Amino acid sequence: MSASDEGLISGRKHNESARSVAQSVAETAAQESGDARSTDRWLLKRMSSFLGDPPIEFAVRGGARVRATSAPIGRVTFASRAMLVSILADPWLRIGDAYSDGSLTVDGDLVAVLEAVYRASTMGDKPSWLRRAADLTHRSRANTLRGSRDNIHHHYDIGNEFYSLWLGDTMAYTCAYYPTPTATLDEAQTAKMHHVCRKVRLKAGESVVEAGCGWGTLALHMARHYGVRVRAFNISHQQIAYARERAAREGLAGQVEYVEDDYRNISGHYDAFVSVGMLEHVGVKNYPTLGRIARRCLGSNGRGLIHSIGRNHPARLQPWIEKRIFPGAYPPALSEMSQIFEPWDLSVLDVENLRLHYAQTLRHWLELYEAAGQRVRAMFDEKFVRMWRLYLAGSVAAFSTGTLQLFQVVFATADNNDLPWTRAHLYT
Amino acid sequence: MSASDEGLISGRKHNESARSVAQSVAETAAQESGDARSTDRWLLKRMSSFLGDPPIEFAVRGGARVRATSAPIGRVTFASRAMLVSILADPWLRIGDAYSDGSLTVDGDLVAVLEAVYRASTMGDKPSWLRRAADLTHRSRANTLRGSRDNIHHHYDIGNEFYSLWLGDTMAYTCAYYPTPTATLDEAQTAKMHHVCRKVRLKAGESVVEAGCGWGTLALHMARHYGVRVRAFNISHQQIAYARERAAREGLAGQVEYVEDDYRNISGHYDAFVSVGMLEHVGVKNYPTLGRIARRCLGSNGRGLIHSIGRNHPARLQPWIEKRIFPGAYPPALSEMSQIFEPWDLSVLDVENLRLHYAQTLRHWLELYEAAGQRVRAMFDEKFVRMWRLYLAGSVAAFSTGTLQLFQVVFATADNNDLPWTRAHLYT
Repeated sequence: MSASDEGLISGRKHNESARSVAQSVAETAAQESGDARSTDRWLLKRMSSFLGDPPIEFAVRGGARVRATSAPIGRVTFASRAMLVSILADPWLRIGDAYSDGSLTVDGDLVAVLEAVYRASTMGDKPSWLRRAADLTHRSRANTLRGSRDNIHHHYDIGNEFYSLWLGDTMAYTCAYYPTPTATLDEAQTAKMHHVCRKVRLKAGESVVEAGCGWGTLALHMARHYGVRVRAFNISHQQIAYARERAAREGLAGQVEYVEDDYRNISGHYDAFVSVGMLEHVGVKNYPTLGRIARRCLGSNGRGLIHSIGRNHPARLQPWIEKRIFPGAYPPALSEMSQIFEPWDLSVLDVENLRLHYAQTLRHWLELYEAAGQRVRAMFDEKFVRMWRLYLAGSVAAFSTGTLQLFQVVFATADNNDLPWTRAHLYT
Repeated sequence: MSASDEGLISGRKHNESARSVAQSVAETAAQESGDARSTDRWLLKRMSSFLGDPPIEFAVRGGARVRATSAPIGRVTFASRAMLVSILADPWLRIGDAYSDGSLTVDGDLVAVLEAVYRASTMGDKPSWLRRAADLTHRSRANTLRGSRDNIHHHYDIGNEFYSLWLGDTMAYTCAYYPTPTATLDEAQTAKMHHVCRKVRLKAGESVVEAGCGWGTLALHMARHYGVRVRAFNISHQQIAYARERAAREGLAGQVEYVEDDYRNISGHYDAFVSVGMLEHVGVKNYPTLGRIARRCLGSNGRGLIHSIGRNHPARLQPWIEKRIFPGAYPPALSEMSQIFEPWDLSVLDVENLRLHYAQTLRHWLELYEAAGQRVRAMFDEKFVRMWRLYLAGSVAAFSTGTLQLFQVVFATADNNDLPWTRAHLYT
């Protein structure tokens, strides 16, 4: 997974609120049938309150408005009262759908509006039982061997050409690493690949296995710049086809083997295990399996790196994102990620949180996406265009507000004492 | 806590093995009553097997020997068969006691022998249910307000003069940081303090709260080199007395306030929360409380650091260490440490594992401890001298073999975007 968000807004209290709102809607509509504007205002206030009363104005097209309590940074307009009522019945799913089909519009900077919503609705110090209750209601599409194939196909096989419009030259669809905030997207993606290679301290002649390789960029980078052999696994047919063609074109097919298969079928022994942006699709239940495979791959001086979107605490994925963008995906908290390492006595050496880098990466993707608008429209309908805009803008907001994290975790087998004395080598 | 180990040997299967051994001892003693040497050999083989058959020779004084299957790196001798039987009935506790009172002696390098035992008995790929079963039997002394005071008094109030013999000039009783492996102990302790201050990015005029301050070294360092005000908490009466005297002598009493109180009673607001080497005494049950206090202390741009001994997976503390050295102590796995941060939406920014640094720190402490032998003997009896040697040597082995870890965790409030873009500032 490259960039999910918690959706427009965090998905807690989903069922609970939806039910009480629907009930109240009926009662209130009856009571105030003579006063449509007053009903609209009441509905809009429910919506604002549901979102934590962000500094946003809410309106029904050609009808009532509700001002924000503080200076508004934007306006959200619903096409009709019926639409507003429909959204209130299942907001976490339907806000996204309504934005996509144009029955919900946003005036003002979309990212800023989404950031305001994230800030207003952050969990902050809310008790963890509330979060746990929300987690229990979360049922995502299973990541069985077959389920994973379907889930990955849904997102990654919609067209290499589409992705090439806005991912930059590297075709890396994961968080970049900006040595300075002014680095370009391509510079930052290249810096990320070096950062990863240095973290696992690749040496010429070594072998690497990569679990989830996207369009194959990192594997080629490792082979070219570090002189290693790479076996790279991916279950996206389109990505593997692209990667193989690229390796052949760049004369690296002898060093890099792309395998169209599931990470659960990785075999062999390697000096390093690397997985950048796959964990979000693995599912917490499968973490011990992933760890077992990493442990089995590595000898006593083995090193590994897992790079993943994560969270400050366990929480369900926003339903709209889970349904429309990333079926089966889940960004874990560190306590959950631990289940990769702890059953196998793998030693966590280094965790780096790069969430501000992902916000910046997503800003760059969003800019390129908007600039490619004509070409995207030639490929897909307007609904798709808006849906992906919302996904990218919402992801910027999720990372910039600290709703989502990006963890790079370096690990090693427990008895590996061939470790660098400090991390200074990453910065020279 | 400064340095615990998993004991001589890891403490799993404690009760289970003790029971089966005791039973077998009785049966075998009856069967082979005519052949004392054969009985000794059988008992020694049980002991070797219990320890995972390390490359060590086992012997009864003036009696039988059992050779190691590979080239031995040392010999463990039991004073008598009776002593050997007694140890086999409860090895994880009694090996330490027997070493302390001299009824178990070690020929060869003590650290190397202990490292061999650690390596032979590591859990490796053993299933996690075995570890979980062992965890369930773990009952340590409670860390209530009163319990913590007793636990801390047991270890830290045995005499400032004693500690000053082997901790070096800094009197820092926590893992040092060696920018290069050849750094001296004092250089490395000073580098550790700078490393911590840089990680929380102290700026002149800021305020810091320190939970668990030992003899006050870090608080003075922060005040002197970073121009901050510090409130430092500790429940060890002797340490606080020493720290206050030192602050006055060094003219820093106006900047550093030492408070003889429990971390649970910390109040006020600060720019940074720092805790180096206290978490081992907090107890997992109290982690959410510690996190709540850290969260409450910090404003929206707050930063924090927790430095603690840890593990690759949850496991009970070795019983001898828990009973004789560190009552109530527990080094957590990262999944357990997460319970400090996750309930309060605190964001983990950086985790660094410094276990090789702690092995080196402990080697330096052990050297100084042995060099101060005469003066230690003038303070304590021979049993104490051997007990502390075993604790220090065992701790070197625990860290050098990867049985224990040292985690430095940097965290921040979730919405803090005033973060350094990279970690390069730590290395310039």
